[in-house]
Amino acid sequence: MTSAEKHNRMANAIRFLSMDAIEKANSGHPGLPMGAADVATVLFSRYLKFDPKNPLWPDRDRFVLSAGHGSMLLYSLLYLTGYEDMTIEDIKQFRQLGSKTAGHPEYGHASGIETTTGPLGQGIANAVGMAIAERKLAQEFGSELQNHFTYALVGDGCLMEGISQEAIALAGHLKLNKLIVFWDDNKITIDGAVSLSDSTNQIARFKSVNWNTIEIDGHDQDAIAAAIEQAQKSDRPTFIACKTIIGFGAPNKQGSHKVHGSPLGAEEIAATRKALNWEADAFSVPADVLDNWRLAGLRSTKARKEWEERLAAAETEKRAEFVRRFAGDLPGGFDSALDAFKKKVAANNPTVATRKASEDVLEVINGLLPETLGGSADLTPSNNTKTSQMKSISPDDFSGRYMHYGIREHATAAAMNGIALHGGLIPYSGGFLIFSDYCRPSVRLAALMGIRVVHVWTHDSIGVGEDGPTHQPVEHVASLRAIPGLMLFRPADETETAECWQIALNNKHRPSGLALTRQNLMPVRKEYEEKNLCASGAYELVSSSDAKVTLFASGSEVEIAVKAAEALEGKGVATRVVSVPCVELFFEQSEDYRKAILGKSPVKIAIEAGVREGWDAFIGNDGAFIGMKSFGASGPAKDLYKHFGITVEAVVAAAEAKL
Amino acid sequence: MTSAEKHNRMANAIRFLSMDAIEKANSGHPGLPMGAADVATVLFSRYLKFDPKNPLWPDRDRFVLSAGHGSMLLYSLLYLTGYEDMTIEDIKQFRQLGSKTAGHPEYGHASGIETTTGPLGQGIANAVGMAIAERKLAQEFGSELQNHFTYALVGDGCLMEGISQEAIALAGHLKLNKLIVFWDDNKITIDGAVSLSDSTNQIARFKSVNWNTIEIDGHDQDAIAAAIEQAQKSDRPTFIACKTIIGFGAPNKQGSHKVHGSPLGAEEIAATRKALNWEADAFSVPADVLDNWRLAGLRSTKARKEWEERLAAAETEKRAEFVRRFAGDLPGGFDSALDAFKKKVAANNPTVATRKASEDVLEVINGLLPETLGGSADLTPSNNTKTSQMKSISPDDFSGRYMHYGIREHATAAAMNGIALHGGLIPYSGGFLIFSDYCRPSVRLAALMGIRVVHVWTHDSIGVGEDGPTHQPVEHVASLRAIPGLMLFRPADETETAECWQIALNNKHRPSGLALTRQNLMPVRKEYEEKNLCASGAYELVSSSDAKVTLFASGSEVEIAVKAAEALEGKGVATRVVSVPCVELFFEQSEDYRKAILGKSPVKIAIEAGVREGWDAFIGNDGAFIGMKSFGASGPAKDLYKHFGITVEAVVAAAEAKL
Repeated sequence: MTSAEKHNRMANAIRFLSMDAIEKANSGHPGLPMGAADVATVLFSRYLKFDPKNPLWPDRDRFVLSAGHGSMLLYSLLYLTGYEDMTIEDIKQFRQLGSKTAGHPEYGHASGIETTTGPLGQGIANAVGMAIAERKLAQEFGSELQNHFTYALVGDGCLMEGISQEAIALAGHLKLNKLIVFWDDNKITIDGAVSLSDSTNQIARFKSVNWNTIEIDGHDQDAIAAAIEQAQKSDRPTFIACKTIIGFGAPNKQGSHKVHGSPLGAEEIAATRKALNWEADAFSVPADVLDNWRLAGLRSTKARKEWEERLAAAETEKRAEFVRRFAGDLPGGFDSALDAFKKKVAANNPTVATRKASEDVLEVINGLLPETLGGSADLTPSNNTKTSQMKSISPDDFSGRYMHYGIREHATAAAMNGIALHGGLIPYSGGFLIFSDYCRPSVRLAALMGIRVVHVWTHDSIGVGEDGPTHQPVEHVASLRAIPGLMLFRPADETETAECWQIALNNKHRPSGLALTRQNLMPVRKEYEEKNLCASGAYELVSSSDAKVTLFASGSEVEIAVKAAEALEGKGVATRVVSVPCVELFFEQSEDYRKAILGKSPVKIAIEAGVREGWDAFIGNDGAFIGMKSFGASGPAKDLYKHFGITVEAVVAAAEAKL
Repeated sequence: MTSAEKHNRMANAIRFLSMDAIEKANSGHPGLPMGAADVATVLFSRYLKFDPKNPLWPDRDRFVLSAGHGSMLLYSLLYLTGYEDMTIEDIKQFRQLGSKTAGHPEYGHASGIETTTGPLGQGIANAVGMAIAERKLAQEFGSELQNHFTYALVGDGCLMEGISQEAIALAGHLKLNKLIVFWDDNKITIDGAVSLSDSTNQIARFKSVNWNTIEIDGHDQDAIAAAIEQAQKSDRPTFIACKTIIGFGAPNKQGSHKVHGSPLGAEEIAATRKALNWEADAFSVPADVLDNWRLAGLRSTKARKEWEERLAAAETEKRAEFVRRFAGDLPGGFDSALDAFKKKVAANNPTVATRKASEDVLEVINGLLPETLGGSADLTPSNNTKTSQMKSISPDDFSGRYMHYGIREHATAAAMNGIALHGGLIPYSGGFLIFSDYCRPSVRLAALMGIRVVHVWTHDSIGVGEDGPTHQPVEHVASLRAIPGLMLFRPADETETAECWQIALNNKHRPSGLALTRQNLMPVRKEYEEKNLCASGAYELVSSSDAKVTLFASGSEVEIAVKAAEALEGKGVATRVVSVPCVELFFEQSEDYRKAILGKSPVKIAIEAGVREGWDAFIGNDGAFIGMKSFGASGPAKDLYKHFGITVEAVVAAAEAKL
């Protein structure tokens, strides 16, 4: 058999597994796996550094299927190359409930799935994050421990989504030369021809953001190989435009949008078998083909062993640090350092904005955790995310630990996901809370994947003031709380800010967002307590026996609640205050704890400079809510609080009206 | 005085008004108004077709300040050119509560503010929508009634945001040659130099998406004029890169990020006065300068009068239609057509997916309303948005009424905003509900501005099935309901779908989103009723005297509620069902109505295939909720409903447990 024949049969194995699985599921996207099979075969059988027996090898090349609807391409590759947790039975269970082989690749379902993709454009931006992580860790630990490529396969959808522009501009700026992106250029989208909606010259576009570009026939294995070899030597990231035929091999449907997202049907599959000269039954891979694929899966065994030897030979401290960092464990002393910080805060009780409080905590954290990679989407002086340890990273110098992500919230969040998925680093970055909307799809994916990224979202309410309603989040705290798994913290003072950071970093498998104020807040937690009270999501800040009124509040409004409670107590009304730094965590507590915190006061009032949605869970639908009913307005923050009736007086009046 | 001197003094008037207002407010962004004053002066004094006395003249050129933080540039221009509702007092009230001159330009606050900007990248995409509207209306009504340019001024932030790529790719594809974008190329962002985070060759980037490009010195009035004249003749949209000095004129601060977002301070303002040879007091514009500006404001009076003559001379029907369309009024017969449709539905009671129901309603609507401009972000066959009347628009043929927006949800939503703001058209477009996250910033702005756009969001729950959790919205209905003003509809069958469309279109000043199913639903409204029951947001679908149980549900879960009620009634438990197609509208009803609908059943249960957040407002925090507590999963829809416990049996069990 010639090398070309061998290649074709290997690629066809992907095509038939994909067709068969999609046919059996009666649902799925055959177009991409069939069209991109040649590119994937060359990459996985000749270039990709990976070891199916050690899927988490830290120096493996990363492969991201950004066009996640082509999931059968990835599942086929994992099965064929010998990942033990991807069997032919798993392939047969494609798109069935409880299977590893979900409709789109789901991180954590099976080894070799480096990230969850499907929402278009996310994968390419994840890949940029992975390449950032590799470069940073190579700088830190040396090329003997970190020296791998990151590959991504993207479709037209990925490239049309705006996030792709943010991501490729960032990658080009940073000269991420070990990032290699294949474009499955098949000229087809769901509506029909790409030309219905786009006329972009993608090569020129990538050149304009400082990429190396190559154009090839995506079905020519030699051209694919030559392109990869050229890309590996580039001093810039490389974009390989691969002209392909969508649904390659299906004689009557290939090249049309009909093969994009529907099973081919038995008849067309039979015709494809004939056209591609494939005699094996459904889900059956001829022995020679499977052997060749399994051999491909063994290609990097030696490299992996050599790498392990290098790790073993590294000096003890470096090795331990590398292993710790990739395990995602925090260094010893983290909790006690934050505890010491809390003591110091309690001794001073500063009146500060929580964005500044966060900076103070970060100063401690970044001193202790070399793995934090800070940053901001061009709001560094506003987000207070750059501490003394954080030298800026530049294209030619990755010795720093601070990313200037640019005005690109979406790619920032997606790159952070990629950094976290890569391992070895904990990414945090800043933005205005209002612009969490710009990166919401990536925040959601972090929650779905269960990865540790921390968003520092400052300017968290009408407290923003003069910038007005376009810059004042009113619904964002509620809407972020709606994302399953995400811990949205809204701390009330410096102590709570420290506790929230502590929880965020101690959770390896959850993303966090910290909603922080621009304006100064008085301390509400004045006494040092060893326990992290924020960890239960809500806790009694001010107790009062047989309370007639309970005030629930978060963040900047806790101060209002405390003052209102004092005023009510002064009027003889027993009032307790519950601080609610994290709604999610509260509802994960035991029923007993929740009942105790909600309490039995006849009057319950929630106070938050945001919308009511979600607060009925605390106060019932007969409770009173002091907050926002509309968008904000432009004016000094104090005027706005008064104008929108979020004041001590309003709380007292609401309590009295209810009593 | 030479023409150059005259220009300089006019531009300096903008600079000083901006500096003075920002200084007085002690807050704001002087950098852009000072840096872009020359570009704005040439445009407004020599080219822009506008009439401050007739600010809503339908054929005026549109000017969008995409870099909205430079709001004082716009306010200065409006005051100087003689808009009557922008006085020097308004300028002095910059950024104060209740003033017209908000921190960022707010649509509706004053004439001449064509759109709300501030969230970066939105304005340029709005401008693309305006240019689409112009082209479409010119095609429809002729160049004698529609023949204007759309100008936008963008900064680095606008160009870094991903939405800008979506927008410019769409504009380039459509050859929107009457769109002219100025880039305030000042090389500065908040973090410092643009080079900290970006290396994009913007000229090459715009060329790659089919734009005409020009590079000029943004302080050279002749070059600016020549560029505009060249752009006006282009057969493609034009990008004019204007090299400017941020904070131009402030001798000690210009050219640095220090002038971007803070007042200059009295000392620097005094130094600027000296440097620019400006003797007038704060907020005072020398008479010669004001005269020249006011003359500039009169420049298009003649053109406007001639336009009015042309309109008056048009044939009666065409004139009436044009006037009606720009007034935003629906044609007579709209409500009765939908009523007839409802009658037809009640006669057939079809079991259909609400996305298909929506297509059926749209078939009626589009037949009656020539102003609807349909579209989809590349999901036409899934969103069912293309009815028989909807021929596709192509770059060379705007006679169609259907936009293939491409895989660009964000630019789609922002362009829809621009189309609605332009007037004369009602844009609707389709996408998957899950990807409402991709366009959330634009949806929010539609709500903030109060404009009529309709989002057709299909595939609205785990009912999506096999595509899995990346494609299954669970938190989106809740998070969209959190946006003030947005009407998020989730109809339960074809009748409700028709009613929701009717409400959406009858509301000139609110955006809507329709969350629609992929899967078939049985009819729940079987009898024809004249009244639009959905208009009250929630209504009693199944009544039961002295009900022990009330079931609240929306969309696809109403069917489950109805069946559960039947089961409970069968067991002797009096049960009523409330359908909740629109939470927002329900909470706008009278207290009496709300109380009556919420009712007094001891047991209240809400059923929705989404998160609980928001439902406590109906059922109290002691009610039961049947819905999602996590992300979804990949599998057939029916399996998923069972797996996640959203079934008739689960509802019955929950009711019995509570009783």
